Amino acid sequence: MTNEREKTLQKIAEVLRSAASVLIFPHIRMDGDSLGSAVALARALRAAGKQAWILVAEDIPNNLHFMEGGLSTRDSKVIEQPDVCIAVDCSDAERIEDRKEAFARGKTTVVIDHHVTFDAFAEINLSDGQAAATGELVFELLKHMAAPIDRPIAEALYAAIVTDTGNFQYSNTSAKTHRITAELYASGIDHTAVVVEIYQNVRPQKILLLGAALNDIQMVADGKIALVQVTKEMFRQTGALISESEGIVEMLRSMRGVEVAAVLKEDNDKVRVGLRSKAAVDVAEIAALFGGGGHQGAAGFSSSDDIETTAVRLIEALKKSLLG
Amino acid sequence: MTNEREKTLQKIAEVLRSAASVLIFPHIRMDGDSLGSAVALARALRAAGKQAWILVAEDIPNNLHFMEGGLSTRDSKVIEQPDVCIAVDCSDAERIEDRKEAFARGKTTVVIDHHVTFDAFAEINLSDGQAAATGELVFELLKHMAAPIDRPIAEALYAAIVTDTGNFQYSNTSAKTHRITAELYASGIDHTAVVVEIYQNVRPQKILLLGAALNDIQMVADGKIALVQVTKEMFRQTGALISESEGIVEMLRSMRGVEVAAVLKEDNDKVRVGLRSKAAVDVAEIAALFGGGGHQGAAGFSSSDDIETTAVRLIEALKKSLLG
Repeated sequence: MTNEREKTLQKIAEVLRSAASVLIFPHIRMDGDSLGSAVALARALRAAGKQAWILVAEDIPNNLHFMEGGLSTRDSKVIEQPDVCIAVDCSDAERIEDRKEAFARGKTTVVIDHHVTFDAFAEINLSDGQAAATGELVFELLKHMAAPIDRPIAEALYAAIVTDTGNFQYSNTSAKTHRITAELYASGIDHTAVVVEIYQNVRPQKILLLGAALNDIQMVADGKIALVQVTKEMFRQTGALISESEGIVEMLRSMRGVEVAAVLKEDNDKVRVGLRSKAAVDVAEIAALFGGGGHQGAAGFSSSDDIETTAVRLIEALKKSLLG
Repeated sequence: MTNEREKTLQKIAEVLRSAASVLIFPHIRMDGDSLGSAVALARALRAAGKQAWILVAEDIPNNLHFMEGGLSTRDSKVIEQPDVCIAVDCSDAERIEDRKEAFARGKTTVVIDHHVTFDAFAEINLSDGQAAATGELVFELLKHMAAPIDRPIAEALYAAIVTDTGNFQYSNTSAKTHRITAELYASGIDHTAVVVEIYQNVRPQKILLLGAALNDIQMVADGKIALVQVTKEMFRQTGALISESEGIVEMLRSMRGVEVAAVLKEDNDKVRVGLRSKAAVDVAEIAALFGGGGHQGAAGFSSSDDIETTAVRLIEALKKSLLG
């Protein structure tokens, strides 16, 4: 595997080195890892005198805008026939969605990803489930390409790693993550500035929603279950978007004594449910009961029942699981 | 300086190597860095066959209890006359408060610290304002002592670094911080378990207080100032302690457009005020106007006015500063 991995990295490096034009594809609903990896690649390729663009089909999220640097475009014809099309942080072709055709126009297609489940959809596929972020793999790729890592490249890779590891807290973080980060510091990154852009740029509406949600916590089963129902009314009153309810469930889990946290959100005619656990409960199993899925510690599902009914059924299932 | 620093580290290593008994002093209101550094030292010294204890005068904070391992005592006579008394993470003697007498009983006294302002109060003093945590210095000290860094030692040092850098986000974090952390991983730390203990162990009352506070945000000066008044009534209703209002001010600052965040807390007959800024305002200057102090980005003061009056005066001062 390791040998295979090195060979594939080497091959991708060679393909990129001999290319004159490269089109880069971050995944839909792009995050820091996806965009950071794309930006680092685009900058390195341009610095080597190549034509390089990041093809997107949506707005750059506000807190990631600082690194975009005019490298992205929505024009799929920005390069008529790219020598290489490379998808970053994409576990399957659905992650590039409407840009699949544009991707296929590449004379060579490549994908670099770090998800555990991976559907090889390009000609050259690198997937390393051990990497904490695709940014780690791009760092290695740039080394293979002997591409200089200047400050903007290092800051994009730092943003990629920081966002995909939850500030080095998630279990995917490794010694390698920290070694790479130490090397990024050597390129003169202003890590505080990056942190301010990424984390201190929250829409006030999101903070208001957090306040409303935390004011309405249900504690069940002697405080082992913490649950919040985020209603349409809360979204309306705070002006927050459904995506801005992220983070509430982790806040609930952080409470002492809580084994499982659940956040139920009213989204049109569905109820979307996020689950997080410490150790006692496998929330992927719970989510599966409701037709959803995920990991032992983080899972979710959608329900067509109303939010109250969903809460009652969920609490019942969680209690059963807690009692063993 | 660097040479001086190395010599001092070497000297402390020698003093500890030749000691048979060592008493270790974390600072009052101990935090992860202070206790983590003390635990790592105590474990390494015991592993080398020495008598070693951590002398405390207060309860171990609940979220740090996991690493204590029976190494701490309140009995200042646990070692009659220690060969070495060593204070960790203490910038001056006031930080060991009532344990000063016990400290002075050491045949040799040592202090290791990383604060920028430092009052050398021992015979051998090591202060390195460049270090992100005293845990970094203890890591280096153990290397100088050729002490093996086993998993419990590595986890204590990891806890020290993580808490004093705010998960590697604060500006004190350096390439060295990440290099040391990578080495701690090599000792087999379970970083996820440490993170759960430290951060997912919050009293529910604190989360309830956060909810109440975020439900009552005042936005002033076109959203450049975010302010919350945490009243006695809120503390009563949520059951939270005054210390559990920490973190609210950072949450306010995280909002897009906010340049200064202020949290005012009613504490007996005082109002305690915490200030945080992004870049536009020097909050240390503002705090100084009210008899307080701090840094450019984080400062505070106490007021004898009531909370409403304090808010009005503060907002006035902040507006003046924002207008330049």
